[in-house]
Amino acid sequence: MVDILQTPLLDTVNIPADLRTLAPTQLRQLADELRQETIAAVGVTGGHLGSGLGVVELTVAIHYVFDTPNDKLVWDVGHQCYPHKILTGRRERIRTLRMGGGLSGFTKRSESEYDPFGAAHSSTSISAALGFGVANKIADKPGKGIAVIGDGAMSAGMAYEAMNNAAQAGNRLVVILNDNDMSIAPPVGGLSAYLSRIVSSREFLGLRDLAKRVAKKLPRPIAAGMRKTDEFARGMAMGGTLFEELGFYYVGPIDGHNLDQLIPVLENVRDAEEGPILVHVVTKKGKGYAPAEAAADKYHGVQKFDVISGVQTKAPPGPPQYQNVFGAQLSKEAETDPLICAITAAMPSGTGLDAFAKAHPERFFDVGIAEQHAVTFAAGLAAQGMRPFCAIYSTFLQRAYDQVVHDVCIQNLPVRFAIDRAGLVGADGATHAGSFDVAYLATLPNMVVMAPADEAELVHMTHTAILHDSGPIAVRYPRGNGTGVELPETPEQLEIGKGRIVRQGHKVAILSLGTRLGEALRAAEALEAKGLSTTVADLRFAKPLDEELIRKLLTTHEVAVTIEEGAVGGLGAHVLTFASDTGLIDAGLKLRTMRLPDIFQDQDKPELQYAQAGLDAEAIVETVLKALRHNSGGVVEGARA
Amino acid sequence: MVDILQTPLLDTVNIPADLRTLAPTQLRQLADELRQETIAAVGVTGGHLGSGLGVVELTVAIHYVFDTPNDKLVWDVGHQCYPHKILTGRRERIRTLRMGGGLSGFTKRSESEYDPFGAAHSSTSISAALGFGVANKIADKPGKGIAVIGDGAMSAGMAYEAMNNAAQAGNRLVVILNDNDMSIAPPVGGLSAYLSRIVSSREFLGLRDLAKRVAKKLPRPIAAGMRKTDEFARGMAMGGTLFEELGFYYVGPIDGHNLDQLIPVLENVRDAEEGPILVHVVTKKGKGYAPAEAAADKYHGVQKFDVISGVQTKAPPGPPQYQNVFGAQLSKEAETDPLICAITAAMPSGTGLDAFAKAHPERFFDVGIAEQHAVTFAAGLAAQGMRPFCAIYSTFLQRAYDQVVHDVCIQNLPVRFAIDRAGLVGADGATHAGSFDVAYLATLPNMVVMAPADEAELVHMTHTAILHDSGPIAVRYPRGNGTGVELPETPEQLEIGKGRIVRQGHKVAILSLGTRLGEALRAAEALEAKGLSTTVADLRFAKPLDEELIRKLLTTHEVAVTIEEGAVGGLGAHVLTFASDTGLIDAGLKLRTMRLPDIFQDQDKPELQYAQAGLDAEAIVETVLKALRHNSGGVVEGARA
Repeated sequence: MVDILQTPLLDTVNIPADLRTLAPTQLRQLADELRQETIAAVGVTGGHLGSGLGVVELTVAIHYVFDTPNDKLVWDVGHQCYPHKILTGRRERIRTLRMGGGLSGFTKRSESEYDPFGAAHSSTSISAALGFGVANKIADKPGKGIAVIGDGAMSAGMAYEAMNNAAQAGNRLVVILNDNDMSIAPPVGGLSAYLSRIVSSREFLGLRDLAKRVAKKLPRPIAAGMRKTDEFARGMAMGGTLFEELGFYYVGPIDGHNLDQLIPVLENVRDAEEGPILVHVVTKKGKGYAPAEAAADKYHGVQKFDVISGVQTKAPPGPPQYQNVFGAQLSKEAETDPLICAITAAMPSGTGLDAFAKAHPERFFDVGIAEQHAVTFAAGLAAQGMRPFCAIYSTFLQRAYDQVVHDVCIQNLPVRFAIDRAGLVGADGATHAGSFDVAYLATLPNMVVMAPADEAELVHMTHTAILHDSGPIAVRYPRGNGTGVELPETPEQLEIGKGRIVRQGHKVAILSLGTRLGEALRAAEALEAKGLSTTVADLRFAKPLDEELIRKLLTTHEVAVTIEEGAVGGLGAHVLTFASDTGLIDAGLKLRTMRLPDIFQDQDKPELQYAQAGLDAEAIVETVLKALRHNSGGVVEGARA
Repeated sequence: MVDILQTPLLDTVNIPADLRTLAPTQLRQLADELRQETIAAVGVTGGHLGSGLGVVELTVAIHYVFDTPNDKLVWDVGHQCYPHKILTGRRERIRTLRMGGGLSGFTKRSESEYDPFGAAHSSTSISAALGFGVANKIADKPGKGIAVIGDGAMSAGMAYEAMNNAAQAGNRLVVILNDNDMSIAPPVGGLSAYLSRIVSSREFLGLRDLAKRVAKKLPRPIAAGMRKTDEFARGMAMGGTLFEELGFYYVGPIDGHNLDQLIPVLENVRDAEEGPILVHVVTKKGKGYAPAEAAADKYHGVQKFDVISGVQTKAPPGPPQYQNVFGAQLSKEAETDPLICAITAAMPSGTGLDAFAKAHPERFFDVGIAEQHAVTFAAGLAAQGMRPFCAIYSTFLQRAYDQVVHDVCIQNLPVRFAIDRAGLVGADGATHAGSFDVAYLATLPNMVVMAPADEAELVHMTHTAILHDSGPIAVRYPRGNGTGVELPETPEQLEIGKGRIVRQGHKVAILSLGTRLGEALRAAEALEAKGLSTTVADLRFAKPLDEELIRKLLTTHEVAVTIEEGAVGGLGAHVLTFASDTGLIDAGLKLRTMRLPDIFQDQDKPELQYAQAGLDAEAIVETVLKALRHNSGGVVEGARA
């Protein structure tokens, strides 16, 4: 694709300093070329397309007007930053996006000084930009903090907490609200409706209007539609926008694709004495690429695609995805169980709940990017006798940890957690990996933590969770496709805290939690081939542990290995604690725990990530052999020789 | 005190149904008696006084007007619920507040059907009340959700997330904003300023005004100051209150101590067809008790006191509190280090930062109840070269877990966490216990986790954290007084991941983290008296572990015991994991881990909580003796005999 692209102007811009040598009249062409380059690159790599296309002009305008990297530009979420990467010295590597060793699909501090703050989870940008602005104020250095945040991300509490504190930064904070009326799913809630009312009730300010409506505190003649004119005097108890009520100077709405408007507005904002300032910019997700404009949700994250037709490369057909197995089972059981309800935080499709939403709209709740509210809302539903499922990715459930502890576990309320994307996640990298949920959940009293070995087990566990009315219960499962096993017609209610033997041997025991079971079985074959009779158990539960099964496995095998797709402090730690509590370790136990390494793993192909993590069949075999060879070095050196 | 109290009307009210038999004209007297009873009870027990006194009339009015317990009343935080407890069948036990086996100082589901949702952490009430309202809507049952939330609690993101979703509940949600312009510390931020502007710009609506200003949608003639009159038509893009913009019907402001206003307003709200509704009630913290009104902050949480004079029983003089040792050291070092800054989430006094705030106001930030923002703001400061300390209680840091993971640890930014109230907390009970921080932090790559054994160690660790610029670092320390050791004149920079031997022996090793060291040393004395030579080590670091020291201790002693004030998955789990990773366990290790039990412990005197937890000297001795007696039951039964 790159060969047929004509980008003469973009070719002259390596970093924003180059951009600033252009005349304002050249920026339109630059933006057009930047848009084409973005489309072409994502056509090759796949990734987030629509959000980047929506901010092409904004990206050009910000770097043209502000003094990046001295002004600190923080892109919220960061999935819209591909054009930004192209303009900040990374064009040569843009076709390595989201690949192993390549550019991150988000902003990342280690990549560039133009990425002063990494992102991927939403709604962090205002807090971080405020930190930059305040640090410079304390040190008496120049440099503002600039946050670019979408309207969907504004539904999260932390964005509000940051806005509530913004006045501290004075004029060193600029928040650019990128209002495209679309996060991954259509945004929900009162704020979204409010923004729509603002936009629909007023036309974009034209240059003539801008010139007329000079706000007194702004330095330049074309003062960019500052809404705070005489008829809306500051200090009124009501009458300002919500942002003004919180202490911002509000500018907008502005057409985010009109550079003739963006540039003078941002220049005024840059030079304004008053602050903090919020610029309300209206954009269209997917702008300038017809297939993406027509279906913004489908082009949020895309596979590789043909640039001309927009046809996405289909992933090869395979077993159903875990998320959809969960969603289908829940939806099916809800047909006969009126107590089941389902909650997502802006991920109806990603969590597989879209089917449920269609079939049971009155019991489906998309609360927006608001995990904290999602969990406590579910706790309220549970307290009133419902059977609520919170379907939240492992990494995003971190946002609601206190609510899990304080509102669910302490009260022992039967909220069900369907935790998707548990474990490594491939191209999305470290920020989206679900590495910590077993550790942070299994430490909590009253909590039950399950992990299915395959999609049939997920059916059983979904069913088990539905019927578990005595307290909280979580089921964690990975991103991606199942293993291809047949799905059960009738789901089983599993006994809480009971695992199963999948393969019986007598010398080596592999204690698996979750979908590493396949690798465990492959390792068992390899060990058997070396004459090492191997048992494989699927523990199913990280909490409560199947103590009877574990005791038997540890006491009747020479070596035991636990394996899980989670960080230290999870299953392995709990099995060791059990072995210590019971004195099983006193006599000598060749017990090893295999887990994610104590690093944040960068994006890569899943199989390479697993190899790096040491969580594949080869690594299991190696761990077992090394343990067998190990010459005990403890207190009673040589006692077992 | 109770003897001289005259409460003839209150004596007739055991539950709200009794209250509802009274005439409206009797409610003033009832409120007065309720106030006196509340003051008398807290005089005996200590606890939260000012917040309860501020809502006496509101408590009476809500129970009089609404159909509790079928309408679900959720008190935010719950520390203002003492009058509520008196009116809901718990008067007889009110003088057991916060005592072992007594009433909780917060709302608690297990105590009463009138406490449908427990609380203690702030800002959860709207989400929970929404859950109740929606559950009833789905089931087609009557009953609203009613949240009573303070203005300070409104600064937290989760309250905003809930408001943004409130329209889903329709008229089944009532939010009563209890605006007393005072949380524990004076509230901060844009919302607080906004509420002040509303209140100062308008007078309370009198009955005559109420009668005049009938809002069309309200059923009763005295329609209670619905602000949404003709001149502020709904649907305008601007002009409504912030709450209206988010989809609420706004009523207020109302004088929260005037029952003649509260009752008709709440009756209208109860019968309104439109919703959700927010009632803005203005109250005075400490109302009706002169000493508390005069110093609202001092009467937030109180010791026992003399009711007539208001003089609080002084806690016996003792060593300095950990929080103040931390605050003083940080403030002192900030005199010569301009990079140090400090952040609290509405706890300037509780975290010991009040001294810092006074000495270095330009580098001190009270962000309000906004832990998420606090952490990411700190990350922004750190990214720009500052040395920020986030001082947050262990239990409240749970609110910012994702920010710790995503914004701090993944980016390896040197944010310093001063984690107060780590471990058990006595009268505040399970909701405030800091049980999980070692587990939830030590699982994270890049994190350093320290715990001082005494206040001198806290000085060293504060100093060490200041100088640790290579990544995040946390120091966790308990509530309450230090041990009385001399504070060092010159702090030491500790080597990261290095512990120390406090007492050398050769048969038993106690590996202690944190302030259980004193109990470990007492246990060592007792063991020594039994002929068991005992080593005591202060590990100082839960992450990274002092592997060299631990290896040595495990391989040169017959029994080893770890002890920590934290839940499973913390230090003990990490020591076991190390012993497994290195094969130290292969030959047999009598290693035990002592930790908090897998339950949520109720409030009690600290020493009784420790005894229940099995974390005192006696329990250590018992654990060691039991381990020594234990006849290994592992693979090689009897091999070590």
